[in-house]
Amino acid sequence: MTDTVEHLRAHRDRHLEELKDFVRIPSVSAKSEHRADVKAAAEWVAERMLEAGLQTAELQPTDGHPIVLGEWRGAQNAPTLLVYGHYDVQPPEPLDEWSSPPFEPTIRDGKLFARGSVDDKGQLFLYLKAIEAHISARGKLPVNIVLLVEGEEEVGSPHLESFLVENRERLACDAVLISDTGMFAPGLPSITRGLRGLAYLEVTVRGPRSDLHSGSYGGAVVNPANALARIIAQLHDDAGRITIPGFYDDVVELSDAERQRIAELPHEEEELRTEVGAPQLDGEQGFSALERVWVRPTLDVNGLLAGYTGEGAKTVLPGRAMAKVSMRLVPNQSHRDIEEKFTRYVQSLAPGGVTIEIEPLHGGEPWYADPQHPIFESAARALEKAFGRPPVFIREGGSIPIVQALQETLEAPVVLIGFALPGANAHAPDEWFSLDNFARGAEAITNLLDEAASLPASR
Amino acid sequence: MTDTVEHLRAHRDRHLEELKDFVRIPSVSAKSEHRADVKAAAEWVAERMLEAGLQTAELQPTDGHPIVLGEWRGAQNAPTLLVYGHYDVQPPEPLDEWSSPPFEPTIRDGKLFARGSVDDKGQLFLYLKAIEAHISARGKLPVNIVLLVEGEEEVGSPHLESFLVENRERLACDAVLISDTGMFAPGLPSITRGLRGLAYLEVTVRGPRSDLHSGSYGGAVVNPANALARIIAQLHDDAGRITIPGFYDDVVELSDAERQRIAELPHEEEELRTEVGAPQLDGEQGFSALERVWVRPTLDVNGLLAGYTGEGAKTVLPGRAMAKVSMRLVPNQSHRDIEEKFTRYVQSLAPGGVTIEIEPLHGGEPWYADPQHPIFESAARALEKAFGRPPVFIREGGSIPIVQALQETLEAPVVLIGFALPGANAHAPDEWFSLDNFARGAEAITNLLDEAASLPASR
Repeated sequence: MTDTVEHLRAHRDRHLEELKDFVRIPSVSAKSEHRADVKAAAEWVAERMLEAGLQTAELQPTDGHPIVLGEWRGAQNAPTLLVYGHYDVQPPEPLDEWSSPPFEPTIRDGKLFARGSVDDKGQLFLYLKAIEAHISARGKLPVNIVLLVEGEEEVGSPHLESFLVENRERLACDAVLISDTGMFAPGLPSITRGLRGLAYLEVTVRGPRSDLHSGSYGGAVVNPANALARIIAQLHDDAGRITIPGFYDDVVELSDAERQRIAELPHEEEELRTEVGAPQLDGEQGFSALERVWVRPTLDVNGLLAGYTGEGAKTVLPGRAMAKVSMRLVPNQSHRDIEEKFTRYVQSLAPGGVTIEIEPLHGGEPWYADPQHPIFESAARALEKAFGRPPVFIREGGSIPIVQALQETLEAPVVLIGFALPGANAHAPDEWFSLDNFARGAEAITNLLDEAASLPASR
Repeated sequence: MTDTVEHLRAHRDRHLEELKDFVRIPSVSAKSEHRADVKAAAEWVAERMLEAGLQTAELQPTDGHPIVLGEWRGAQNAPTLLVYGHYDVQPPEPLDEWSSPPFEPTIRDGKLFARGSVDDKGQLFLYLKAIEAHISARGKLPVNIVLLVEGEEEVGSPHLESFLVENRERLACDAVLISDTGMFAPGLPSITRGLRGLAYLEVTVRGPRSDLHSGSYGGAVVNPANALARIIAQLHDDAGRITIPGFYDDVVELSDAERQRIAELPHEEEELRTEVGAPQLDGEQGFSALERVWVRPTLDVNGLLAGYTGEGAKTVLPGRAMAKVSMRLVPNQSHRDIEEKFTRYVQSLAPGGVTIEIEPLHGGEPWYADPQHPIFESAARALEKAFGRPPVFIREGGSIPIVQALQETLEAPVVLIGFALPGANAHAPDEWFSLDNFARGAEAITNLLDEAASLPASR
């Protein structure tokens, strides 16, 4: 056991009490009534940075919630690591579905239950304690460290990208570390090396000027709801492939080696089916469920609205119909290119009796890490030491747009090392963080600082 | 000019004031707060029946609002006519879209504006004044009369059909007269001889147990909103025909003669297009817009709902999707048969990853009059005398389920003689009744009582 891990184990109880203090702060970034709480959480993080031994910790104001920036730059000729995390949390509602109050941390069955316990206060906290362990045991860190902690991740990070661009020199680093994702299974350390991108658009089909009586006019005019259904139906073929011309042009096809790696993961489709409660799984033919979610693009209707949707029968021929449609994208698709192709194709499907408006609502690029960079070997060794087995490389079907921005702006590899277990309820009631992962995660990060010290320092 | 018409003209101003009193009563049957007003309107009708000279007028209680029944049976060996009308009105909302308050009758541009002016108080009132004219001028009626006036037409006549069945003998008649429809154009008297039927169902497609994150699960499961769109899209072919197997089996095809009569009506499709404000008219190929609305069955989505429909982008994969779908039916389709065929076909279209529930919400049979019965000749002559030109025979695309019930239960022909002009806003703000039609309509009905006297009396 190293001296740093020894420090962690000796102080674990105190660390857990500190984390409880952190999650007691209701730092809900989405609600203006919690503005003071969000500020308090930022100050809490800055104080813990200085207590852990960082040289500086400052609150950087934004037009929204502040960014906390902590630095330690005493390791000459050593690499610089930038750690990204966030101290804000999702709203806790619905409150009556929590087994214990969201901001009163409670331990049950080896889990810490609280809003923010795993997303992302608890995972961010691991870095503070790893730094404390090094500086406390040895008086210094083996690498230079920049901690970049924002308070607006749960509202789409509206001020972070411009902050990255404006502070590009100060934030220069050799690698970016983020712990805000999950493990594939209990006891199985995981490095996430791919995220899907997103193109989200709203389609409005307009026919007659206003709603009409479906008896008096039905048959004479095109019904926008029928027309919208016909348009949506034409976006997939019978094999589940998306029919938008050029949609797959830039998709990087799966290599046999990668298919093999995915197939070897401990995953049962029947378990997934039971988890979601659907009669059966289905989707694009020729791919497993994990492949479909991780490495294949999709097109899903997220919302549909037209006409009368209340109780009973109202014979209205709606004047318009709306669909929210999103596409999850994979490397090397670009969300702007896909938005254009979607718009052009959907417009081409409009029958004569209607007009179509299409508004892009949200977009983000897919991200894929090249795990050839030696930081991935460092991370793998650090995880293996803490968990007793080497990590698996996984992907996520969701999108974290800031990851691609960090990689591009800072021109550094990003490593996603997540410690949330499946079912941790990150955005739901009864969010929890495994106490075992709290312990092993801190040790893994502590190890990683040592492992990374041998990387070439290019900055 | 007959003595009865002379009476009408001499008392027209008083009659108009009486109608104003009638429409001042806010007899909104849909709202329990208006229960006393609805009762007051029923009593108003009964009092006017007796004032007009009917022998009896009684309020028949139902589980809802009362039916008013008036009778005059002094014409021996003469036929018996049953007049159906209703004294309840649609809710007046939205109030701020009225140019004058809905229950303060106001005359502008030769029109009486008020809720109920044309639907149906004003048209029902014509019969009261025609009866008054006969009894006042001659001391008797040329035919026996039963006036059947309900107070629940605007809420679907829930108690009328059982009343018809229970009082079949008392209500026995040689013909049924109803004035609750419209004229094809100003100055052009019209007899409506067809109404479409209705089969209205709600379709719910269920996939996963609950809403899912579209990133974490999109691609692995069937999206119920996409599946619903694909199902709806398969309900029509590219020529606008409905694809439900057997859907057209019982449809009576248009004869060349009827197509000719419809084509000869003064109707411009461009005017209809401008009226509804659609980019162009469209529908089943091979038929004119009037044919499509009057004599061809349709399938319209009346409502669509799935997932997130608020502002912005929420990446939800909905657990279910709902469509309200109605079919307008034509002779000799049966709504129960069509409901079965629809249900069987839609279930057959379900992809493997979802289940489908289908609930019938409302149904009514199509109705078509055989205008060979001599009452139609009587009506045509009466209308020609009042308006100076013979009536056209038209149809309506909407449904009035009680018409078929009257015809079947009483085994008598039903004649729909309507005096509402196009654009009369029957269920909308600024409902109005043309004062010219108020005058000519009363004369036409007065004439019709004379014309009908020569019909064979079978009862």
